Amino acid sequence: MLHFENDYNEGAHPELLKALIETNDENLAGYGMDSYTQRAADKIRETCGCPQAQIQFVTGGTQTNQLVINSLLKSYEGVIAAETGHVATHEAGAIEFSGHKVLTLPHDAGKLKADDVAQYLADFYADGNHEHMVFPGMVYISHPTEYGTLYNHEELAALVKVCRSYDIPLFMDGARLGYALGSSSSDLSLETIAELCDVFYIGGTKLGALAGEAIVFTKNNMPKHFTAIVKQHGALVAKGRIFGVQFDRFFTDNLYEKIGREAVGYAEQLKTILKEKGYRFYLESPTNQQFLIVANDKLTELGQSVVYSFWEKYDENHTVIRLATSWSTTQADIDAIAQVL
Amino acid sequence: MLHFENDYNEGAHPELLKALIETNDENLAGYGMDSYTQRAADKIRETCGCPQAQIQFVTGGTQTNQLVINSLLKSYEGVIAAETGHVATHEAGAIEFSGHKVLTLPHDAGKLKADDVAQYLADFYADGNHEHMVFPGMVYISHPTEYGTLYNHEELAALVKVCRSYDIPLFMDGARLGYALGSSSSDLSLETIAELCDVFYIGGTKLGALAGEAIVFTKNNMPKHFTAIVKQHGALVAKGRIFGVQFDRFFTDNLYEKIGREAVGYAEQLKTILKEKGYRFYLESPTNQQFLIVANDKLTELGQSVVYSFWEKYDENHTVIRLATSWSTTQADIDAIAQVL
Amino acid sequence: MLHFENDYNEGAHPELLKALIETNDENLAGYGMDSYTQRAADKIRETCGCPQAQIQFVTGGTQTNQLVINSLLKSYEGVIAAETGHVATHEAGAIEFSGHKVLTLPHDAGKLKADDVAQYLADFYADGNHEHMVFPGMVYISHPTEYGTLYNHEELAALVKVCRSYDIPLFMDGARLGYALGSSSSDLSLETIAELCDVFYIGGTKLGALAGEAIVFTKNNMPKHFTAIVKQHGALVAKGRIFGVQFDRFFTDNLYEKIGREAVGYAEQLKTILKEKGYRFYLESPTNQQFLIVANDKLTELGQSVVYSFWEKYDENHTVIRLATSWSTTQADIDAIAQVL
Amino acid sequence: MLHFENDYNEGAHPELLKALIETNDENLAGYGMDSYTQRAADKIRETCGCPQAQIQFVTGGTQTNQLVINSLLKSYEGVIAAETGHVATHEAGAIEFSGHKVLTLPHDAGKLKADDVAQYLADFYADGNHEHMVFPGMVYISHPTEYGTLYNHEELAALVKVCRSYDIPLFMDGARLGYALGSSSSDLSLETIAELCDVFYIGGTKLGALAGEAIVFTKNNMPKHFTAIVKQHGALVAKGRIFGVQFDRFFTDNLYEKIGREAVGYAEQLKTILKEKGYRFYLESPTNQQFLIVANDKLTELGQSVVYSFWEKYDENHTVIRLATSWSTTQADIDAIAQVL
Repeated sequence: MLHFENDYNEGAHPELLKALIETNDENLAGYGMDSYTQRAADKIRETCGCPQAQIQFVTGGTQTNQLVINSLLKSYEGVIAAETGHVATHEAGAIEFSGHKVLTLPHDAGKLKADDVAQYLADFYADGNHEHMVFPGMVYISHPTEYGTLYNHEELAALVKVCRSYDIPLFMDGARLGYALGSSSSDLSLETIAELCDVFYIGGTKLGALAGEAIVFTKNNMPKHFTAIVKQHGALVAKGRIFGVQFDRFFTDNLYEKIGREAVGYAEQLKTILKEKGYRFYLESPTNQQFLIVANDKLTELGQSVVYSFWEKYDENHTVIRLATSWSTTQADIDAIAQVL
Repeated sequence: MLHFENDYNEGAHPELLKALIETNDENLAGYGMDSYTQRAADKIRETCGCPQAQIQFVTGGTQTNQLVINSLLKSYEGVIAAETGHVATHEAGAIEFSGHKVLTLPHDAGKLKADDVAQYLADFYADGNHEHMVFPGMVYISHPTEYGTLYNHEELAALVKVCRSYDIPLFMDGARLGYALGSSSSDLSLETIAELCDVFYIGGTKLGALAGEAIVFTKNNMPKHFTAIVKQHGALVAKGRIFGVQFDRFFTDNLYEKIGREAVGYAEQLKTILKEKGYRFYLESPTNQQFLIVANDKLTELGQSVVYSFWEKYDENHTVIRLATSWSTTQADIDAIAQVL
Repeated sequence: MLHFENDYNEGAHPELLKALIETNDENLAGYGMDSYTQRAADKIRETCGCPQAQIQFVTGGTQTNQLVINSLLKSYEGVIAAETGHVATHEAGAIEFSGHKVLTLPHDAGKLKADDVAQYLADFYADGNHEHMVFPGMVYISHPTEYGTLYNHEELAALVKVCRSYDIPLFMDGARLGYALGSSSSDLSLETIAELCDVFYIGGTKLGALAGEAIVFTKNNMPKHFTAIVKQHGALVAKGRIFGVQFDRFFTDNLYEKIGREAVGYAEQLKTILKEKGYRFYLESPTNQQFLIVANDKLTELGQSVVYSFWEKYDENHTVIRLATSWSTTQADIDAIAQVL
Repeated sequence: MLHFENDYNEGAHPELLKALIETNDENLAGYGMDSYTQRAADKIRETCGCPQAQIQFVTGGTQTNQLVINSLLKSYEGVIAAETGHVATHEAGAIEFSGHKVLTLPHDAGKLKADDVAQYLADFYADGNHEHMVFPGMVYISHPTEYGTLYNHEELAALVKVCRSYDIPLFMDGARLGYALGSSSSDLSLETIAELCDVFYIGGTKLGALAGEAIVFTKNNMPKHFTAIVKQHGALVAKGRIFGVQFDRFFTDNLYEKIGREAVGYAEQLKTILKEKGYRFYLESPTNQQFLIVANDKLTELGQSVVYSFWEKYDENHTVIRLATSWSTTQADIDAIAQVL
């Protein structure tokens, strides 16, 4: 079977695994106090051109979103997100579980529009009775979005402008950030992202880490005693080294971006093949996730040789599916899928 | 000024105040263990024709909604509500604060449609990946709705049927229940409501109580140790007698329904007057709240003699306003407003 | 039966009831925006000699404690309290329910000792590993305590000094504050309390209000958007006037303190009688609550004419009971109990 | 330096690392749906002699405790623990953060005594007013305890008897369970533990896993939709395989117990050496953690060659320190420390 269903079904990228093996016997302090974690943070600060960045590594994406949102918001605040945002749809209510409403707005191919956010905020403060409503306290975006799409510099800057004018932070969920950085369509670098966003995270799991995400607070805005907050959420890991060692390697010789670029390169090849074969795209994605509209009667046949993800029903006779390349995709995989499509 | 802005701007209905005065010097057990509270509960059980009903009195509506929803839902469940439902819009996120997502569906003049709920539930369980989503664990409706509209017996029964088939409770927010019971358009009595709903509350504050709402669990489904839960929410009142005495009076000689009927009678008179004067109704409401579309340039003039509620912007030149009669409205008020409209 | 079991078993003090009756028909804004609430707040500010005080009225004591503690603490902080403190023992876990640990210290007749608090704080910060522990973020005291005892000025100032040196607020639970102010043993006035405490509340329910407590933030430290926080806790009351009207009356002609003084005067008479009759006191209380050690075989007899509160087991053969005078105690009650003791 | 400060400062046990390497390139389903996770669960069920056991793997110990306690307790319940229990002291308030009070009892060398628990429960239900208190809803023990001590079969059975008579579950925190199973002093096997406890966890991290703990519900009592609950806590890991692969290996050829036995063997050697050298033990521990009372002026010298953990101040001139062997301790380490002590 050819695996294109997602980007987290294999273990670790060989280089990360190698780093874990090489450091395995070293005696290192626990709970993220080890030298690799410190070094990884230093390298991220350097790559982001953001010397004041404060960094915390945790295990997974939902955990990250819950931690960031819950620790930055006041109790009476909610977070604005696209109705397709991961926090709004696929986190089993983790944001509400920690006390906050997700205030959803319509999406444009997975993206929030600055104008919509500005309108929402203006309307909110226009209503005199807003003490009975949930205050919008943060804007959450994912980049790439859940549909693989990307914000460009202008769009991100427009969102930032709105956020700044209401003095609320902009939080970027970068579960697949490497696939954005590695896309030739992207005009956003880690430096720009660090400059524009108040907080974002650099996703490790979907880029080849066994586990691990790096939360980056860019404006000297990490909540006080954040370690205690992380502990309190059950998110502080004894062997924090596993994140330190992997992110130290990710940010050596530009590996993180390289992984992303390679996978997006394979996705581009896949797009070309799919277009040649006459497949219909649900939307245009410049990253590793591709969304297709496939007739239901073709799905069974496709499923015999390719593992894909069901995304959503398109109409009575068609389905939207996702094909994803990843850090573990090879040229052989692409050549093979070209044969069977 | 003529006050038609809402139904909670005067103190207590004279009969309730009288009861409070008459019982003021009695020594009565605290925390709802007094004889008036017991008697009020008995009378409610009798009026509802529901001998097994379990009743708890608390101070206000948002508190009630938070208590009922939080104590009946599992942590991973959310509550389905119309997008205009009070829990979704005007409770400062009290439901999310207690850990639960409000799952909103489109409304039909403030009402949830059974078909929409059925479709939502079917879609939810059709998606194999729903362990990553918020489980729909309850259906919340308000009756009258936030737009003064009413469910009829058929509509309520249809909702109940959907709920039963998924084994989730139906909760009716009756903050203004008396104005539903007192409406000649209504084919739902307290008996039918108790039979159909799993839990509902009988609103006191907006029907003339100083404060107080009666939560009624109809299916022997009051959560175990509910008193401790109420205490834990900060909602257990030392002098629970104030609810007991008022509800005992509400349910003596049918006062509760009488109050509602009288206020809706005045609302009907008001509707006739408004229609004669050519006012444009936003929707047809059979209860004490009336919603009008008024040209913005007429609003200032109207505001000189009548206090109304701003509801929402209708378009650039028009506004939706609410005029409400209440337990304290008199024939003189209606005659006076007829003059100035 | 003679009622000495507590101070909340009758309705409202006649003067408060009168004020409620007199204002009943006035049309007043909801949610505490009415003129009586504003006036009550003004009078409290004046009595406290604290023009910057910010005041919020809510229904009951546990609600108050939960609101104040939850809104002032950071998520990783707990509240220091005596092991006998109300928040530690009789609030059904309301503090933990809202996410915070109660950090208990030994008590001295219900009081926290400044030295113990200082030692606890010093030890906490001496341990390098405190990011894995609950940060002490506030000190909670009750005045009078659960045992009727009082802090004197020196003791309170010592606590304040410790709090200031660690930059954490001191919160005084004044559920029975009037009985402290009315005690001849007390050298603390509302002015001193407002000067020393960062936040405290003036209990209404146990001093003769139907319901109502006044939270006073003295250092311009009311959390931002506190109304929304109160709403979110289900604690915002539509007819906020009931608190405004009663507290306006409490703070007219010094009624609040007068009520306390009278009740404590009766308690002093009761103490004299009890001493004459040879009763054994559990501790020396200068306020309205008196604690006695009574042989179990005498209890039944006493119970035939006097209603008292069981407090705790003293030893196999003795029980600690509480006799409380209150705003509703009369000279006739005292004369009568003198006969039966 | 000789490292005896704890049991989590090196990476993974060589056999576990090998298993991770060997399976790294396999395409496996995410979120714990992979074959290794299923197989690991099967092997645990078999080793426990508990075919109905329900198993969930998560990342760390505090996370586990929070998940188990929060999902099994009702909102109004707290968990009974020794005052030295990890949940009471070193989890940054994670239990309270999720809404529950830790009800502490005195400890006996880290252990809870069945009699104390029985007395606490009897007293609780003897007080008629317990609706205002926190209901004891679970008993938490750690085995080995935070002091390295062990419950024997009789003690555990006595606790179970108390729990059963009040119908509350017994939860065993097995962060270091392997070191209990591997102790020659222990008369408790995984089979007995599974039979007696309602839920327990098998600690991986401190026994040589990179990360991972196995929660075992033994009485068909895993909360419904537990996956959603885990997700909601931010505790569901995309590459659940990392736990599956490691626990599959732990429970092949009895590796888990073997690791424990070897480490405890080294601890026994260390004890003999320490006794010979005249060191004073704080208490008698039959597992991998040893607690010594050392004169402060000796500590600096010791610290020059051995890394130990500060535990607590003993008196003005002495300190309690911990020396721990672990899965990574070697005979060479023991020989070396014998030289320097």
